[in-house]
Amino acid sequence: MRNIRIMIEYDGTDFSGWQFQNNARTVQDEIQKAVFEITRESVAVNGAGRTDAGVHARGQVGNFKIEKRITDFDLKKGLNAVLPHDVRIRSLGEVPHEFHARFSARERMYRYYLSPEPVAVGRQYCWFYPHTLRLDVMNGAAKMCLGDHSFRAFCSVHAEVSHYRCQVIRADWTFRDGMIVFEVRANRFLHNMVRALVGTMIEAGRERITAADFSSILHSQDRTKARYTAPAAGLILEEVVYENAI
Amino acid sequence: MRNIRIMIEYDGTDFSGWQFQNNARTVQDEIQKAVFEITRESVAVNGAGRTDAGVHARGQVGNFKIEKRITDFDLKKGLNAVLPHDVRIRSLGEVPHEFHARFSARERMYRYYLSPEPVAVGRQYCWFYPHTLRLDVMNGAAKMCLGDHSFRAFCSVHAEVSHYRCQVIRADWTFRDGMIVFEVRANRFLHNMVRALVGTMIEAGRERITAADFSSILHSQDRTKARYTAPAAGLILEEVVYENAI
Repeated sequence: MRNIRIMIEYDGTDFSGWQFQNNARTVQDEIQKAVFEITRESVAVNGAGRTDAGVHARGQVGNFKIEKRITDFDLKKGLNAVLPHDVRIRSLGEVPHEFHARFSARERMYRYYLSPEPVAVGRQYCWFYPHTLRLDVMNGAAKMCLGDHSFRAFCSVHAEVSHYRCQVIRADWTFRDGMIVFEVRANRFLHNMVRALVGTMIEAGRERITAADFSSILHSQDRTKARYTAPAAGLILEEVVYENAI
Repeated sequence: MRNIRIMIEYDGTDFSGWQFQNNARTVQDEIQKAVFEITRESVAVNGAGRTDAGVHARGQVGNFKIEKRITDFDLKKGLNAVLPHDVRIRSLGEVPHEFHARFSARERMYRYYLSPEPVAVGRQYCWFYPHTLRLDVMNGAAKMCLGDHSFRAFCSVHAEVSHYRCQVIRADWTFRDGMIVFEVRANRFLHNMVRALVGTMIEAGRERITAADFSSILHSQDRTKARYTAPAAGLILEEVVYENAI
């Protein structure tokens, strides 16, 4: 058995998310079908981040195990030839047997893109939000996320997790190329966490709540205290970091 | 009558180009229908560049004349409310009666985007071209375009034009944000010109022809000498320049 690591890019617009579901189009299922088509082996593809319906990825990482002897070059080429155009394998290589895309990951980085102006070219990858936002206030709130906290207030109530603690390494808002961008880096993310953070921080950006209110919401650990969940289209899983760069 | 200038962004993927055609979805027709819905006036919308099927625009400029008294703010908001999501009015304002989006334009700028890597997020806006390209050779060819030349060799044979001369002010290839980008600025463009230039210059980039060969093709004025016409998806009308900035 060989353990194969893939870096995956996908446009989440027409997907019901990463994870396999009956009667729904998912990225995991498309990749599993493509691996079968090339290798005739039924595999389970592990993914580092189980992105929701409509969420995109430029740097999702996955792994699967196959018997077939095939070069990395031919496997990548074969997969991209049979995969639908909204999923692409960016890179591929053999990794040690114990590598697991999800459990070996040390850090994930997401970006959320808000457009203050109407967009046609690339409208699938941002949220058009025409209100004036105070980035300084939003950065004040973002700073409160840094370090080790329970993010239960920003997690879907139905999430099946043993605990809500996440270690946030970076969280900031910047203006770049006409977009307002939230970049957040953490060891793990809870279900809907980034979108709930964005939906709540823009309330701070519009000065409807203060950075201190944001901090109270965070520490309340109560989901009903957080605000709107920002739309999926603006969210992109950009990067997954491992102990050993591969 | 008031003369209204609009700056338009559109995703050309699902359009049969800018110009009105019977039984086809065009940008001009969508805007004319939207103006009618808001003003109840049937207008002709002039466009600065008559982009082809599948070509995008971030900075197309148009104008039309209406009687209705309505603020710029309300007209822009109304148009964006009724237009389909793949067309957006970026800005709008009243201009002197003699302004004509096409005839008053002094300069247009297009960019063509090639991706050397497979793309899912934004695949609608570039051409995936996995071959190694020598940008220095392509820039040698691009330089030959500068100045006043007949571009008949790079024009569709069926184009209805009185002459083929274009004055090219800028033409270069750069690598930016993972894309290989051709930027070209000229007083006018012929039908299919940018795509034919790109299709021919990549032959130089692959060292199948030299910059001198490119120059011979240009000066031959013979369409059969030029090469492949690059796909529409990679082309974006970025900017139109007028004598008086509005």
